[in-house]
Amino acid sequence: PGVPRSRGCAGARGSREVVPTCERYAVRRLPFGRLADGDVAFFERLMPGRVVTGQEEVRPFNVDWLQSVRGCSQLVLKPQTTAEVSQVLRYCHERNLAVNPQGGNTGLVGGSVPVFDEIVLSTALMNRIISFDRVSGILVCQAGCVLERLNEYLEEQGFIMPLDLGAKGSCHIGGNVATNAGGLRLLRYGSLRGTVLGLEVVLADGSALDCLTSLRKDNTGYDLKQLFIGSEGTLGVITAVSILCPQKPKAVNVAFLGCQSFAKVLETFTTCRAMLGEILSAFEFMDEKCMELVERHLKLSSPVADSPFYVLIETSGSNSTHDEEKLNNFLEKAIASGLVSDGTMATDYKKIKASHLRERITEALTHEGYVYKYDISLPVGKLYELVTDMRARLGHRAKNVLGYGHLGDGNLHLNITAESYSHSLLDAIEPFVYEWTARCSGSISAEHGLGFKKKQFIQYSKPQQAVLLMQRFKAMLDPKGILNPYKVLPSAH
Amino acid sequence: PGVPRSRGCAGARGSREVVPTCERYAVRRLPFGRLADGDVAFFERLMPGRVVTGQEEVRPFNVDWLQSVRGCSQLVLKPQTTAEVSQVLRYCHERNLAVNPQGGNTGLVGGSVPVFDEIVLSTALMNRIISFDRVSGILVCQAGCVLERLNEYLEEQGFIMPLDLGAKGSCHIGGNVATNAGGLRLLRYGSLRGTVLGLEVVLADGSALDCLTSLRKDNTGYDLKQLFIGSEGTLGVITAVSILCPQKPKAVNVAFLGCQSFAKVLETFTTCRAMLGEILSAFEFMDEKCMELVERHLKLSSPVADSPFYVLIETSGSNSTHDEEKLNNFLEKAIASGLVSDGTMATDYKKIKASHLRERITEALTHEGYVYKYDISLPVGKLYELVTDMRARLGHRAKNVLGYGHLGDGNLHLNITAESYSHSLLDAIEPFVYEWTARCSGSISAEHGLGFKKKQFIQYSKPQQAVLLMQRFKAMLDPKGILNPYKVLPSAH
Repeated sequence: PGVPRSRGCAGARGSREVVPTCERYAVRRLPFGRLADGDVAFFERLMPGRVVTGQEEVRPFNVDWLQSVRGCSQLVLKPQTTAEVSQVLRYCHERNLAVNPQGGNTGLVGGSVPVFDEIVLSTALMNRIISFDRVSGILVCQAGCVLERLNEYLEEQGFIMPLDLGAKGSCHIGGNVATNAGGLRLLRYGSLRGTVLGLEVVLADGSALDCLTSLRKDNTGYDLKQLFIGSEGTLGVITAVSILCPQKPKAVNVAFLGCQSFAKVLETFTTCRAMLGEILSAFEFMDEKCMELVERHLKLSSPVADSPFYVLIETSGSNSTHDEEKLNNFLEKAIASGLVSDGTMATDYKKIKASHLRERITEALTHEGYVYKYDISLPVGKLYELVTDMRARLGHRAKNVLGYGHLGDGNLHLNITAESYSHSLLDAIEPFVYEWTARCSGSISAEHGLGFKKKQFIQYSKPQQAVLLMQRFKAMLDPKGILNPYKVLPSAH
Repeated sequence: PGVPRSRGCAGARGSREVVPTCERYAVRRLPFGRLADGDVAFFERLMPGRVVTGQEEVRPFNVDWLQSVRGCSQLVLKPQTTAEVSQVLRYCHERNLAVNPQGGNTGLVGGSVPVFDEIVLSTALMNRIISFDRVSGILVCQAGCVLERLNEYLEEQGFIMPLDLGAKGSCHIGGNVATNAGGLRLLRYGSLRGTVLGLEVVLADGSALDCLTSLRKDNTGYDLKQLFIGSEGTLGVITAVSILCPQKPKAVNVAFLGCQSFAKVLETFTTCRAMLGEILSAFEFMDEKCMELVERHLKLSSPVADSPFYVLIETSGSNSTHDEEKLNNFLEKAIASGLVSDGTMATDYKKIKASHLRERITEALTHEGYVYKYDISLPVGKLYELVTDMRARLGHRAKNVLGYGHLGDGNLHLNITAESYSHSLLDAIEPFVYEWTARCSGSISAEHGLGFKKKQFIQYSKPQQAVLLMQRFKAMLDPKGILNPYKVLPSAH
């Protein structure tokens, strides 16, 4: 997105107004049509009572959860059916009106809100469960179903969703798929690219593409749905999802451990994977800075003695006796061999504070002032080196440099906090962080996507040839570029 | 592929010559360039000693493993490097010469051999392992590595490949990925769409696309590699693969069971999944007809008493005591409740004949005469109904109608045998089998792909809109259509 042009309060949650994205960043509006009274009247006829106008009413759809970017849309549409989404897009395509598809608006890279006056197409009212098959575990539902609601629904039938993330109370499954969300269960159940079995998508011109099959295996032609998974709403609007859900584990155990060094965290991971094998469902880590922030801002307390690093291990299995025996064997070995300096274990997931600690770091960070957020994939062994290097590089210029993440997946969440946004601090961080990542053949966005904020940095993780091919796919599927413009792909210079 | 024009011996292995595809099927050669002496000279200079000409030498590359189709290529090229593949394709693209990428030539739908005189581009000499990381379990290798060799290599390091199939001794990993192979471990480790982390692909014009990352998570732009997984060599030539490999299980157990009805097979599956949970790694079934053929043609014998259905259950886990306890509990319950009438269990995978029985059905079938093969995805509950219906429909016209497959994945292998190929028998089977499948929203090719033989039936599993979009992708990536022509997508009528 280029260089911010003005200082401001983006990132701080509170009463101060967020600087509009188009003011903060050097970005120019593309020559889309402008919304006219006749357009609003058309939509009112199409979906009476589900058309939102008025600055105050539209505002929550214009600002992202982090309060870091702000669009100036004047119109939010809330379709209930795929046919309505089709009609909206056909109309917008004809009128050359830009559209910003929006799920729960919990994205972290500015992908879910407009940049200028794009019409917001919200999936909020597309929240119907279409079917669930208890033999196969396959769920089919509309895109606007909230992740946590789906999980609750499944738990009643002895199943769970194959993904879980901090934003589960608000995020929509359609948005999860559109951003290829990762989260806490990826280590165990794999990525959405394997668990999503079918999609229904409306293309930019309004035509519906029905790939909503409920089959584990289907090798009849190219797997078109994959192109839409992780395309962040730039290639089509996902309207329904078919997803393979695992059985609800009969036993879930959580261990929260303290480690004296990152080398010991790594060794704990290797030992744990060998000893827990198929029941390991999460291996998360956080450093002491994270713990400090969670304690300070959220008044939570650590369940183990102060340590430079903390590890959260989750097991999920079908036999509680076997699982506890495996976990106990592992803990005994980890403590006896000095890998772990302190630890606690709980068999009731709901009771343990440890997992909440880990899940609520993002929230704690919002109390810190401005947050520079990075979501990096690296070879596991290199994961924490980036935090150490960054801390040394920034010195007193940063308030805090902290690291946590999904160690089992090689995924680091690097966060740098400061009282307020500063141009010079950003210059010290970028492109250093991206160059560092590229040198290790890492990814500059492991799970958050590129959205608006990271799109200009795609070349650090993808070769020119790949970016050109992506641009050709975009041009083919959305020749007018009306779907979520200014996102994912770098703008020409 | 339309209607066969002449009777012949295709499908029967032996001394009789296979009828050339272009004679048997009503298919017309597209206006590609014709191979000239100058072309062969060019390739000889490019890769001296690795250019195969001469009818006898080229023959094994022209005929598929089933001996059901036969091309008439005059040239086989065996590149060793991606750069060579690039140069070959750049040259062919310029000269408008059609190319048939070929791995181990173990495909079952005629996708791996030429239809006319396409140049065969074999990956046989691209068999180098590039790297393996023991912490992450990520293997990077060239496309021509044989699956079984890779698995042996990994086992020495405590890992295994995430897929396993009957053709493992010959098939290439590049071909596995190009056809999105399923196989025996899919139930446990998921599809290649989740485990393949990166690909290197050479496009039709010779340009190389490097998406060969080794990261579990990377959300920087569209996931281009997915388009090539399962594209059967029609969109690009896969030259290298990065794949996530699971740890080698410390304990593998196999149980072979007899069931008195398919309803009991289904109930056994539900019970088994609940009681074995995370250690269940395969749930295969076969009917008594399969057992008869394996016994008759391969002189193998059943380890359990004669039953209408047989079930093979495999568990893989990290603790043999726990696993055996789980499996014993399950077997006790299954036998006590009458789900299973006879059963045997083995803890040494290599010793048990049961799994060999299941793996060798395809081979036994080749001794039967002509085989009409169908690879269908259906809702699990409907899986065997198709076999019963087909058997009733065909009566004495078929020698045998038999069913087996990956029940855990809803995947049925339906096979109909006859002394020799017959036009009228084919008419009795097709399109009945496809219409039946479409009525259940199934897939007419669960894992074998479409290749040459099934491409004309794609519309039974994919809507028109999806097929049109596939054709646009093909036109974009391979505008001259030189890559594996006559395959996957239906030809215009």
